[in-house]
Amino acid sequence: MALSDEIFLIAKKARAASFEVANLSSTIKNGALEEMAKGLEENAELLKTENAKDLARAKEKGLTEAMINRLTLSQKVIASMAAGLREVAALEDPVGIVTDVKVRPNGLRIGRMSIPLGVIGIIYESRPNVTADAAGLCLKSGNAVVLRGGSESIDSNRAIAKVLAEACQKCGVPEAAIQVITTTDRGAVLEMLKLEEQIDIIIPRGGEGLIRFVVENSKIPVIKHYKGVCHVYVDVDADMENAVNIAFNAKVQRPGVCNSMETLLVHNDIAASFLPLIAGVYKEAGVEIRGCAQTCAILPEAKQATDADYAKEFLDLIIAIKVVEDLDGAKAHIERFGSLHTESIVTENYTNAERFIREINSSSVMVNASTRFADGFEYGLGAEIGISTTKLHAFGPMGLGELTTKKFIVYGDGQIRE
Amino acid sequence: MALSDEIFLIAKKARAASFEVANLSSTIKNGALEEMAKGLEENAELLKTENAKDLARAKEKGLTEAMINRLTLSQKVIASMAAGLREVAALEDPVGIVTDVKVRPNGLRIGRMSIPLGVIGIIYESRPNVTADAAGLCLKSGNAVVLRGGSESIDSNRAIAKVLAEACQKCGVPEAAIQVITTTDRGAVLEMLKLEEQIDIIIPRGGEGLIRFVVENSKIPVIKHYKGVCHVYVDVDADMENAVNIAFNAKVQRPGVCNSMETLLVHNDIAASFLPLIAGVYKEAGVEIRGCAQTCAILPEAKQATDADYAKEFLDLIIAIKVVEDLDGAKAHIERFGSLHTESIVTENYTNAERFIREINSSSVMVNASTRFADGFEYGLGAEIGISTTKLHAFGPMGLGELTTKKFIVYGDGQIRE
Repeated sequence: MALSDEIFLIAKKARAASFEVANLSSTIKNGALEEMAKGLEENAELLKTENAKDLARAKEKGLTEAMINRLTLSQKVIASMAAGLREVAALEDPVGIVTDVKVRPNGLRIGRMSIPLGVIGIIYESRPNVTADAAGLCLKSGNAVVLRGGSESIDSNRAIAKVLAEACQKCGVPEAAIQVITTTDRGAVLEMLKLEEQIDIIIPRGGEGLIRFVVENSKIPVIKHYKGVCHVYVDVDADMENAVNIAFNAKVQRPGVCNSMETLLVHNDIAASFLPLIAGVYKEAGVEIRGCAQTCAILPEAKQATDADYAKEFLDLIIAIKVVEDLDGAKAHIERFGSLHTESIVTENYTNAERFIREINSSSVMVNASTRFADGFEYGLGAEIGISTTKLHAFGPMGLGELTTKKFIVYGDGQIRE
Repeated sequence: MALSDEIFLIAKKARAASFEVANLSSTIKNGALEEMAKGLEENAELLKTENAKDLARAKEKGLTEAMINRLTLSQKVIASMAAGLREVAALEDPVGIVTDVKVRPNGLRIGRMSIPLGVIGIIYESRPNVTADAAGLCLKSGNAVVLRGGSESIDSNRAIAKVLAEACQKCGVPEAAIQVITTTDRGAVLEMLKLEEQIDIIIPRGGEGLIRFVVENSKIPVIKHYKGVCHVYVDVDADMENAVNIAFNAKVQRPGVCNSMETLLVHNDIAASFLPLIAGVYKEAGVEIRGCAQTCAILPEAKQATDADYAKEFLDLIIAIKVVEDLDGAKAHIERFGSLHTESIVTENYTNAERFIREINSSSVMVNASTRFADGFEYGLGAEIGISTTKLHAFGPMGLGELTTKKFIVYGDGQIRE
């Protein structure tokens, strides 16, 4: 079969299944999620055997250790996939929730009901655990899903897909509700991105390169975030202990993720006292400092920062620092260089805290907290399918609720329009 | 200046203004809306003079009477534009509303706050009243707007834009918050649709041709609806009087709009009794009937319907009728031919009513009410910027709330992540 036909057929089956999945009861969906978890555990040896084929090819190709790590299905990773599915089963069903009901003067009762988006396409790198995680979230939210993982993980994904499909079949969920594209043909993603009639939304998960490729080529709406250039602004009225703790935690606790801080903004009037404090703890942790002229004057060890540094997501133990005049200076910097991900102010000043919360329109804005909290689990969403830094549909960490939309429901007793 | 530079400059100014508009108080925004209304009234003669130039050219070009009608700025249209702006001023400000606040175990207070989308692009046909209507809704929701109306209405739009800009200037709203593209160059829309860094969302308003052109060419997310193929399903347990009233009202009251019914689905067991009733009133109103074989057997005056008829938005006194086995038959027909706009069931049966509400995932689903109610005013949204039949971001009639999104706000007292 031609590649385009093969992908079209998968998407068409997903569309047909989506009508059925949308109306499954929570009991059936949760039963399938539990069965999927059990299936992964019971087939752990098979999964590891299939994963070994991917790993062998990956090593031959000379993939980096980090990539090999993400590709590996260890007993621990399999257990965590199963646990993730059980956690999703335990979450509240996001479908069918009725809100905003009002009675109109003519007696019509009008409200909104949450419904699934329909068919979701997930495009991700060679991390086979995403296959089970994303499939679980899409099923729980009543969506059909078409998954396409990185080509290095094909054998692992095929094995996981088989386990998930068997669980679906056992539990009354249409098999086509969860489909994994396992062709080795690298053109599969491009074919998938054309199918706007069959797929309602694409969620790419991975590095900026993958995401830009998807956005450039998709006819289907994409929910995405390119990068997290997160800021902490230490205000003149900051509690110094909070400021040091938060600026340290936001940079150092896990520098390789999108909600870690990349640029530290410091109020002019406390720069001379604060910068040496934070530089001291950064030095111990091996953090490289790139600063503006004023920063460099206070911290002789700092390198000169360029505009490119302020726009960059280092994902590493490197921090850009800028001394600003005041809150307006911090705002202007964030508006120019920010990525709409997460910004935090450290201050004891009421007006500045509230102005920051109100006036900075990034997807997460914080007062006296580390940017590292910006994720679905920490926010209590119970799960996270991704983060959006575009304002349409979802903005910030996306949980199950963001995989639904709302229709209007209207209850009448014979009303007609005059 | 080259066209691309001209349009880029407008969009860039809009982006810069959007940061300021987002944080204007309701008082300032409402003051500007009132001033805009006053300005339109006081400049009615000027508007009519400029409009006359557009009208003269339109008549020369031989535009249809309907198009000339939509293009005309009569005293009544101007008064209604002014009244519309005052109504928007009276609506609740949709920006800054805090919801979903929860306290996490670590003491973080996390909630969501509504914020403007940013810069909205509106592309519409030669209906100059849309210029004021859309500008008012975008301003009230804290967005900057770039408006591009049909090329036949350029002089009218330029005059309206001047009045709106003067009102903004008087009231502390940045002038670039409301900009109208008035070049005669027809390439302006294409240039506008490229500016994904400057414009957050495109809302096209007009016929299916315009909307498809925008979707095909836009790099910016588009909120849209192509057409409304709305259905009424008369169930076996329908109250006959309700069924006749609703099926008549939905088709005849205003056939030229998207929420009028195009296809009537009738349960097999009542077809023989119901069809002659509705055919009688349709005949008096001059409605042409195109039916399935069963319909034609009952109604000799009916023409044979084709699949194309069932997929068509007639926008006219033509109705397609199909006899179906039961609710599942109606569902299958709607899933195949529907446009996700509005569907209504007429029934006294509790289970069928609730199944219809739950299982049909169109943007509006109704029980015992005319599809004609599917609009923002009738739903109590206070205004309507358009209707979306795609599920992302907004689904159904869009009011002021749909011109906003929600960011996460996080209040801490020094929390760091362990």
